[in-house]
This record gives sequence, C-alpha cells and structure tokens, in this order.
Amino acid sequence: MYRMVSIAEAQETVLKAISPLPSVSLGLSDAVGYILGEDVIAREPLPPFPASIKDGYAVVSADGPGDYDVAFEALAGTAAGHLKAGTVAYITTGAPLPEGADAVVQIENTEKLPPGSDGQQRVRIVKPAKGPGDDVRATGSDIASGEVVLAKGSRIGAAEIGLLATVGAATVQVWRKARVAVLSTGDELVEPDCAQLGPGQIRDANRFMLAAAARSAGCEAVDLGIARDDPAQVEAKFQEAIAQGVDVLLTSGGVSVGDRDFIKPILERQGTVHFGKVCMKPGKPLTFATLNGDAGSSGRGLVVFGLPGNPVSSIVTFNLVVLPALRAMAGWAEPRLRRVHARMQMAIKLDPERPETGESAGELAAVSTGGQISSRLLSMRSANALLELPAAQGLLPAGSLVSALLIDDLGAMTVPEEIPLVVPTL
Amino acid sequence: MYRMVSIAEAQETVLKAISPLPSVSLGLSDAVGYILGEDVIAREPLPPFPASIKDGYAVVSADGPGDYDVAFEALAGTAAGHLKAGTVAYITTGAPLPEGADAVVQIENTEKLPPGSDGQQRVRIVKPAKGPGDDVRATGSDIASGEVVLAKGSRIGAAEIGLLATVGAATVQVWRKARVAVLSTGDELVEPDCAQLGPGQIRDANRFMLAAAARSAGCEAVDLGIARDDPAQVEAKFQEAIAQGVDVLLTSGGVSVGDRDFIKPILERQGTVHFGKVCMKPGKPLTFATLNGDAGSSGRGLVVFGLPGNPVSSIVTFNLVVLPALRAMAGWAEPRLRRVHARMQMAIKLDPERPETGESAGELAAVSTGGQISSRLLSMRSANALLELPAAQGLLPAGSLVSALLIDDLGAMTVPEEIPLVVPTL
Ligand SMILES: [Mg+2]
Ligand SMILES: [Mg+2]
Repeated sequence: MYRMVSIAEAQETVLKAISPLPSVSLGLSDAVGYILGEDVIAREPLPPFPASIKDGYAVVSADGPGDYDVAFEALAGTAAGHLKAGTVAYITTGAPLPEGADAVVQIENTEKLPPGSDGQQRVRIVKPAKGPGDDVRATGSDIASGEVVLAKGSRIGAAEIGLLATVGAATVQVWRKARVAVLSTGDELVEPDCAQLGPGQIRDANRFMLAAAARSAGCEAVDLGIARDDPAQVEAKFQEAIAQGVDVLLTSGGVSVGDRDFIKPILERQGTVHFGKVCMKPGKPLTFATLNGDAGSSGRGLVVFGLPGNPVSSIVTFNLVVLPALRAMAGWAEPRLRRVHARMQMAIKLDPERPETGESAGELAAVSTGGQISSRLLSMRSANALLELPAAQGLLPAGSLVSALLIDDLGAMTVPEEIPLVVPTL
Repeated sequence: MYRMVSIAEAQETVLKAISPLPSVSLGLSDAVGYILGEDVIAREPLPPFPASIKDGYAVVSADGPGDYDVAFEALAGTAAGHLKAGTVAYITTGAPLPEGADAVVQIENTEKLPPGSDGQQRVRIVKPAKGPGDDVRATGSDIASGEVVLAKGSRIGAAEIGLLATVGAATVQVWRKARVAVLSTGDELVEPDCAQLGPGQIRDANRFMLAAAARSAGCEAVDLGIARDDPAQVEAKFQEAIAQGVDVLLTSGGVSVGDRDFIKPILERQGTVHFGKVCMKPGKPLTFATLNGDAGSSGRGLVVFGLPGNPVSSIVTFNLVVLPALRAMAGWAEPRLRRVHARMQMAIKLDPERPETGESAGELAAVSTGGQISSRLLSMRSANALLELPAAQGLLPAGSLVSALLIDDLGAMTVPEEIPLVVPTL
C-alpha cells in the first residue's frame, strides 16, 4: 500500500527526481518555444552607426532654418558621406548620418524648392532640428556592444527570435525537449477508428489526448499503442519504450487496486516507485517511478508516470504533475503552472475528503464546466483552468474568490472579458 | 496621402476584407490548434453499457451485507455475464455490469473469505451498496447517443482530441490555416549569419521574427528573403508570393514617406490599399492591401500587410492587426486579442498625440519593459501584453488600472502571482 501524498509533495518529488535534458544547438528558425541554454551577447553595437530615425534631411543643427543646397543623398545601406556646414543631405530612415551632420529634420518640416539654374537640388528647412542628436539614433543606443541581449534561461518567442537575428546568433544552444511515449492499457480499449464496438469495449482516448498534450508542450510523442491487461504485454511495451530511447513514458490505466492492474507491480520490479497515491480528485492513483540504468535518450534513466485510466483524471494529472516535469526537463526555471484568481459565477459543491488549497484576490470570472465524474471528458471541453477548491462540506457560494491554475493559453481566449473563465473543479 | 485610421477601424477593415479559408480533413493527431469546421456527434452512448466505477463486486443491492459466493469475474473488455441474486461477481473498473446486478461494492468495503471446501471463492460484503446504481455509470451517462460533443467553431486542444477519439471521429473537418510569406525590404539589410557588417548595414531581424510569430499562430511560413529598395525587385517578390500560392504576404520596411519606400505605390498599382496610416505608436505607417484576381492558394486573392521596418513596430502591428486576421482565416469566431486589466507598478509617461483607449477593473501587475523607441527590440523581450494607454499629457501614476492585450501565453508564465506582467507600452 502506498502512503497518500499531497499534490504539492507529488510535484516536489517529481521535480527533485528529474533534471534538465542536455542542450542542443538549433538554427534560429527552429528555436521558438525553447529555453536558451547560454547567454547571448551582442558583438557589435546597434545601430552600428548613428542612424536616421526619419526620412528627411541630415543637417548641421546649428545652421538653423533657411534654404539649403542638397549636397548629396544619404541612403540606407550605404557608407556615410561627409556633410559640409551650410548644406544638407537627403537621408532615408535607417541610413548612416553623414560625418559633419549632427541631426535630422524630418521631411514634413521641410519644403522642396525649385532646383537652381545649375540643376542643384534645394530645400527649405521650415522647422529646424531642436539640437544635436535630433531624430538620430546614436551608435549602440538600442543595444550596446557586449550587452547580454538574452540571458541563459530565457524562453524564446517571436520577439526573442528577432533579437537573436539582430545580433547575428544564427544558431543557439537550447535545452532539448523530452521525447514522450504514450501507452494505453486495458482489455476494453479499441482504436478510435473502430466502426462497431464489441461487447464491453470503448474507444481509447487517453493515448491521443496525452500525445496531443505532450506535443502542445513542444515534445515529440511516440505512440506505443495499447497493452492488454497482461503483465507480459505491459513489460514488453516498457522494453519498447527503453529501446526507442524516450525520456518519459506515460501510461494510462492499470494503476488502481484491482487484480488486473499491473503497472505498479511492474514498476516496482523494474525501478523505483516514488509515489502511488495522491490526495486529489480526480487523479488519486497517479503513480511516479524512475527506471534505473541507461534507459532514456540521455542515458539518465526512464521517467514513468502511471496515469489513471479515466480520461479526466488522466488529463488533470498530466497538467498538474507531468507538464511541470516536461517543462523542467526543457530547462524552465519555474516549471509550475501559473496560479491566477477568479470569482465564482455559480455555487460549487465541496468535497470533504480530498482537499485543495484556496486563496483569494482576483478578477477573472470562473464557471464550472460541471459533471465532475472522472470519466466524463465533456467536463474538460473548453476548460482553461483547474480550480483549487478547499476541502470542506457544503457549497462554495457564487461570488467566492477561488484560486485556479491555468492549463490553456488565456491569450487564445480572445473573447471580451465579460465571457467567463471556464474551469473544471478538481 | 492616406487618411489616419484608428486601430479599431484598421482591425475592422481587415476582418471585413478577409474570410475563413476552406476547410480541410485532418487526422486526429494533426488537429490540435485548429478550429472545428463541423459539429461532431456521438454515434453511441458513453459508456455503451452500464460500467463499474470501481474495482470490487457486482451485487444485487437488495441482498445487503453478508457472506457471498463469488459466482464469476466480470472483467473490463468482456461481455456482460448474468448474476443470480444471492451471489456476487468480482468486477474491475470499466467492466460491464452483469445482467441481474444493479450496483457495485468497492473492494475496500469487502473482506476476502477463505474458499469453500469445493474451492468456491467467497467474499464478505461489509459495507453494502446504498442502493441500485451505486458505483455504476449508467449507459450514456457521460455522453448521450446523438449528443453534439464538439460544436463547429470549437478550438481543438488536448481534451478535445480525447473527445474526438472517444466518439470515433478519427478524421475531422477543420479550417485550413494561412500560408504566410515574409519579405524584408531595405538596402541596409544583410542575413543574420553575416560575420562582418559592411558600412551602413544591419542584420535582418523582422523576417525571422515575423515567420516565428506566424508559425506560433500555427501557420506555415514561406521565406521570400530580402528585396532591395528597387521597385522591380519588390514587384518580382510579389509575383513570387503569388506564384507560391500563399494566402498572406507580410512585408517589412518601405512603407514610410521616403522616396525609396516602394511598397505602397506598388500595392496601389497591383490591388487595393485599404489603409496606409494608423493612429498608433509604434506602427503608424502600417499598410493593408488586397491583390485582386486569383492569387492566394484558395484563389481568393492575396492579402498583404506592409509592416513598418522598425522591429518593435513590426511585431506590435503583427499582434494587433495581422494575428486577428490569421485567426479569422483559421475560423476563429472571435479573432481579436483578449483584453485583461492590470495595475501599473510604475509611473508611465503618456503620449498626447496617438491615443489608445483605457479601461479599468483588474488585478494583474504591469511593469513597462521600458525603452519605447520603435527600433529597440529589447523592449519586447519577455513582453506578454501590450498596454493600452490613454492619449494624454503627463504621467500615468503607479497604481493606475490599465487595459492590456495579451500577446503571449500567460499560462507559460508559470511564476507565482507576485511576479509582474511585463508589458511594453504602445
Ligand atoms: Mg483497466
Ligand atoms: Mg527602408
């Protein structure tokens, strides 16, 4: 029998047992979503030269307003020319400021004059530069030479890709993401494309759901199929996971107390079971083990999560315990789920047995997706957070502030703010 | 000259000019992140039979506590047997309830007895079932036959993949996502891997940043490289975009008022420019055009966004105007960015010229990433929201409530809630 551990203890145990995977070198275009494994430093200043912020005229600011010869054109991508006082140069945005010039007057503050009799272009400076440096980006004003533009541990998004390109970091060291195998267990399971269910059969949902969740975390998913409730078949699948060199194996089903539940006994024989019972609802039979030896693509052993077979239990335990582990392996400094606060829009019945901590102080609106039975996957449809409900009798009244863990991109909920945050209760 | 339009007007104009792309059929494992293009209906009830919720014994609930013969085993994945009153059957989680039985007693409420002299397995029911249906999931209690489990327009995440697998929807109709070409323009640009910058040169960042942003939205990105400040070269790239059958072309640079800015004149010649100047900071020269004819992979014409060349302007206008367009093309019913509210942790200088609307009522913490000059991409590093600041003189004091648009996954900000929301000011 396993000691019942709290969710926090389960998470801590997992995060202690794993470590970031080795780093790999990736090209710029492949690095989105990874965590940077090195400081990235600018080798040159940006801009590398004093650059015009506007389209207009490079001037000697002390010359002031008046009519000027346009001595030459200073175009982006060309070497800086040399400007004599008493003349101006046409300049485009991003072009190097000519030597001798100290400011730019934007085109809107000038007036084109008719060319001189010798064909000389001329311009009237109507509103002069305020002083040296006006509308000029000084060398290194965006990025100083030697500056750390992205620190080790940064998460790489689109803006970070832009920064890497800017400083010439065409390849970067990032932490590798886990390869995750998914295995469903159960004599009752058939493939989703099964046209006609036989007696006692249901379609396997967990394998596809967990693979999708792993992929959404940026991991590669390896499909190990379905193992029947037969220890030899389950063990063979474990060996297949090891042979495929995956870092993480997610099983679902077979972790309850029934005499056809073989996952825990096999894990005990082959490695170390760190916990086998967690104080949460749903998800109580969640099991975590590490298999010793040289398994895993990094030779660090295989990490195994035995998830419950009920689909809601399986996706909830994935989010609460597996996802932080995948993030930690990928180098996230803070792999835990983000906690927000939300105001209940409806009353919710509490469960006295298995507690969750509650806190307060927020403004998002929470509605339960209802139907908390752990087999009922419809309760996870459109869910973007998991409510953390206190262990208590009775009802949590509407208007209560509850704590919630984000499991989906709130930014993808583009709806106006009056639309509620939809949450299944734990 | 172009009329200055508001951000809201720009967004509305774009959303009016485009429509969702045609739907495509995808396998279950490829459908994450897409919008469902059809109602998905359950063809059978779930569970398809009365199923045990626990490992334990199937009983006739009226029999009550006492010692019973274990008549047979009812295992998951097998056909339901027939139970006679006065006996019980061993049953595993998910197994069909035997005919004649009406409840399940979990194993924890029973005691195994020594077998009878004839070898007959026997069990003591210590704590009986409360009544018919106890620990049994009735047929269709999770999903009714004929129920719409996912409606057209649903966004498909991991839980939704599980639902699709459950009801046997091995392939689904989803809206296709846009193919997006990225093109940088400017004589000053060189590739990121350039070892030594020449006079007046800088590395191209926008193309890689915008491609990454398009990919993060699930789109395929096509790299058209760099066009010099030469109308013939720009036009050739436009033709290449059309020949490649992309849906959207993102250019950056060449949309200002300088005489080397060719994007707008070419768009005017080849199609319809809907706007060329937006009241926002940064991002004012943002240009939107549609090219008539049979361009675009769906034969609906090519949608072109001329983004400003400064990298901050370019990623900000991408998020505010392009991203909603890509979402609308992918079938999102509400493609606009999600608005949240945040409390300023520091004072911010306001800009009287180009307004943004402000609202109030929230609890996230906002700190500015500083350095608002539109070339300074460092100000976008780690940014996850765009503040919407009112047009006004002076300072917005710390403690003010401001409205903000999410541009990153808050759920990926796994840090505790006291860590601030980091935002660049518009
Ligand atoms: Mg089972
Ligand atoms: Mg240019």
